[in-house]
Amino acid sequence: MKELVYNRLLLPAIERWPDKVGFHDGDRHLTFAEHGDRVLRLGDALRRELGVRPGDRFAVMAANCQQYLELYHAGYLGSGVVNPLNLRLAGKELQFILADSGTEVAFVDAMFADHFHRSIHEVRADLPLRHVVLIGDGDAPHDVRYEDLIASGHPVVPEEPEEEDPVILMYTGGTTGLPKGVLLDQRAEMLNLYHIASSVGFSEHRVYLHQTPMFHAASMGAVLGIPAAGATSVFVPLFEPAAVMEAIETYSVDWTVMVPTMIAMVMAHPEFRAERMASLRELVYGASPMPAALLDRLLSTFPEMNIWQGYGMTESSSVLTFLTPEDHRGGGQKLRSAGRPAMGVVLSIQNQDGEILGSGKEGEVCARAGNFMQRYWNRQQETADAFRGGWYHTGDAGHMDEAGYLYLVDRVKDMIVSGGENVYSIEVENAISTHPAVDQVAVIGIPHDIWGEQVHAIVVLKPGMSATAEEIQEHARASIAGYKVPKSVEFRAEPLPLSGAMKPLKRELRRPYWEKEAGA
Amino acid sequence: MKELVYNRLLLPAIERWPDKVGFHDGDRHLTFAEHGDRVLRLGDALRRELGVRPGDRFAVMAANCQQYLELYHAGYLGSGVVNPLNLRLAGKELQFILADSGTEVAFVDAMFADHFHRSIHEVRADLPLRHVVLIGDGDAPHDVRYEDLIASGHPVVPEEPEEEDPVILMYTGGTTGLPKGVLLDQRAEMLNLYHIASSVGFSEHRVYLHQTPMFHAASMGAVLGIPAAGATSVFVPLFEPAAVMEAIETYSVDWTVMVPTMIAMVMAHPEFRAERMASLRELVYGASPMPAALLDRLLSTFPEMNIWQGYGMTESSSVLTFLTPEDHRGGGQKLRSAGRPAMGVVLSIQNQDGEILGSGKEGEVCARAGNFMQRYWNRQQETADAFRGGWYHTGDAGHMDEAGYLYLVDRVKDMIVSGGENVYSIEVENAISTHPAVDQVAVIGIPHDIWGEQVHAIVVLKPGMSATAEEIQEHARASIAGYKVPKSVEFRAEPLPLSGAMKPLKRELRRPYWEKEAGA
Repeated sequence: MKELVYNRLLLPAIERWPDKVGFHDGDRHLTFAEHGDRVLRLGDALRRELGVRPGDRFAVMAANCQQYLELYHAGYLGSGVVNPLNLRLAGKELQFILADSGTEVAFVDAMFADHFHRSIHEVRADLPLRHVVLIGDGDAPHDVRYEDLIASGHPVVPEEPEEEDPVILMYTGGTTGLPKGVLLDQRAEMLNLYHIASSVGFSEHRVYLHQTPMFHAASMGAVLGIPAAGATSVFVPLFEPAAVMEAIETYSVDWTVMVPTMIAMVMAHPEFRAERMASLRELVYGASPMPAALLDRLLSTFPEMNIWQGYGMTESSSVLTFLTPEDHRGGGQKLRSAGRPAMGVVLSIQNQDGEILGSGKEGEVCARAGNFMQRYWNRQQETADAFRGGWYHTGDAGHMDEAGYLYLVDRVKDMIVSGGENVYSIEVENAISTHPAVDQVAVIGIPHDIWGEQVHAIVVLKPGMSATAEEIQEHARASIAGYKVPKSVEFRAEPLPLSGAMKPLKRELRRPYWEKEAGA
Repeated sequence: MKELVYNRLLLPAIERWPDKVGFHDGDRHLTFAEHGDRVLRLGDALRRELGVRPGDRFAVMAANCQQYLELYHAGYLGSGVVNPLNLRLAGKELQFILADSGTEVAFVDAMFADHFHRSIHEVRADLPLRHVVLIGDGDAPHDVRYEDLIASGHPVVPEEPEEEDPVILMYTGGTTGLPKGVLLDQRAEMLNLYHIASSVGFSEHRVYLHQTPMFHAASMGAVLGIPAAGATSVFVPLFEPAAVMEAIETYSVDWTVMVPTMIAMVMAHPEFRAERMASLRELVYGASPMPAALLDRLLSTFPEMNIWQGYGMTESSSVLTFLTPEDHRGGGQKLRSAGRPAMGVVLSIQNQDGEILGSGKEGEVCARAGNFMQRYWNRQQETADAFRGGWYHTGDAGHMDEAGYLYLVDRVKDMIVSGGENVYSIEVENAISTHPAVDQVAVIGIPHDIWGEQVHAIVVLKPGMSATAEEIQEHARASIAGYKVPKSVEFRAEPLPLSGAMKPLKRELRRPYWEKEAGA
């Protein structure tokens, strides 16, 4: 089948809006015709100059830029499978991914070229990597410069792919400690796009800001949908509150996707003023739990804004459920939910035996939808496990209410078990985050001789404010059960370490405690 | 593949909104749970009691009603292929369709039961028809009553169908004079639904009015999408302006689909007042050309209403392009267009050699999209012709402007669209040409304020013979449906102008009528 392939969207858009300046990246301002011409040349050069055949993987390690979009589009039009690399990967992880994926060509921008080469230096000879292409200027080692590559290609429309042809190999953290490659095909990405089109909606008048990393699944809807609709893409290389506010003002950005941490950082910035964001009509957040206090502040600061929560994962091309602007305006208990399934997504809550539980019952969140991956790359057993019983198992615990709203409690594997009681970190974090002095909080389980795990809170206070451990515990006790109140509170002066997706890196926070334990 | 099947939408909706009264049909008011229970029982009874296996066709001849929705839903859940019958079919046409489709079970409502039996009486023994099920009360012959059938079924969820399983066999007028069956599958209907969801949009708060006949492709988006979204369906049995206005007021209807003729009739009704339609947020029109004066009046009467034009055909499950509310508010030349392709639809204008023409050039409108039929039933050659070169050939002539707007100019297929119904000239010409006094006949569409086009016959009599317009009409009525009979007959003494291929030069015959219109 060929209908659900990206060529059917992008190529007509380039024909329809040739002269529209639809891509703003620093000093680069491109029309659709220019972008399209470069994408076709790039695809041709990938095939002819670099020997990338359909199905072959090529990697990208770059900050957000218009060229990143070109690479995605060339891949989607049928010139290879894009392997977008998380910019914060440790050397060992990067080495593993390049080897596991069999990536033969890597595109690296000037900002990350040194990091890339340092990270793989010691094993470079053993990797399948044949070519490194340098985006932009700089002295970093490379085989060919990106602009030379484009100049060598011809603007040829490639043969139309099939729906089952893979387009993305995106690595995600693995529960076993090694990243897993998620293989997504044309059809999955297209149906994901229809889910977004049926909710947030696309139109040629949209102006979208890429500030969420373009290597992240949360960007895929915009990577594909915005240019296909004739809408405008604006790029900020790396998230930075001042740059984000400036881009929104300059280009009258009306739609963006942010993780909660980004929203908190923008609103905490000294130059933040609500008026500067006046053009922003649609704000989608997701990828990590939204602290209750932050959501309240967001809603009261921007009463006119359409605020969406999306919940999903790399394995589902991004999104499964939406909490809509209407839900947000309704307030109340729903604000603690992840919303309801997008059209065509079916959810169920299952127990460990795969039985479907009724509303209100807590279990594992499972899903059926057309936007799921084909498989984990090289992981037949993990693929079979993930899809056992015909349902994708998210690994998230939650329940659904009678109206179909999904409530997540925490990652199943992230749950703290203390004295035989299950404690979900998000509940504790929500309870603490409403304390006026608290800026950031992460709750983890640390070893305890008697309870197995002890609930432990790591808190960063707002500048110039103070609080004691007792005050934090007292505040939490007002809204959660005594056994969930942290037994210990640790204050840090430094911001919490964040993942590439801007989530607190719980694994790193936990490590010192558990290493001590293991060594004892 | 199983993702793009209607079960994935309808069954969760019934679980999510069990107590919502979502179906209003006269005195019948059903909840989602009641509707769902009846649909599952009906499906079970279809399979077990009536022997309808997946792929088997069952026909429906009924005015709009909630039971019609049940029949569609039972079919879509996997209990047979629905063959919805046009209520105005002449006896010969109905006989042909029942024989050609191999329909073994027919559902007939009390209003059309007599017509149905009279129409097929003479050939009943030769038809494959095994059972006639009577919906509602009445004395018409039947094998089983609809309510007894439902009572005999169990609320069993059937095995999930595959995407390629056919769900609809819908007959459309044929160029050769015989109706053609259009076979549509789960996937096509689901993708059609995504096209509508990405444009007009669904939500649980919608209240949709079924007044356009439910046997018509234009109703499919609402038949499937409205209940799946948890929205409310309201039924008016047969279009009637007073009933439509009353239903809109009573149920605060906010969305409906109308053909231009219906809009004209409502606005011309003595009891029409704009305030009575105040709840109507979305009005979709299509299926026939919109008279310019009517569109202007509609726009000025309802400046706040979101007015959509949809263009499509039975073969595309309904819709290919939309002229959006924004386009309508923009006014100007675009108001004469059919809008731009829905997301995922690709259009081209082709010449007779299948070459794609540039913008502004006139040719045949061709399309690629995921919502096209599998094939014409029993018409291998016509299917191959329709999809030659990988494009569906609509038979409509038109051009596209540089912004991608489609302008329809004429019907390549020589078809008249009158009051939303397709009338193929050749069918009418065949019916008239058998009159003993007729030497030549050409049937064309001429402008009509309410119907868009009116069927008009131009007749040259044999030397020395005579006939009146009434006699010609009476003769035609014996073999074709009433709506196909020419409303006006014009006699000429001179032979008709002929093309090189000895066909009447229809464009020349039409010109004086349409020039008058354009100049007005």
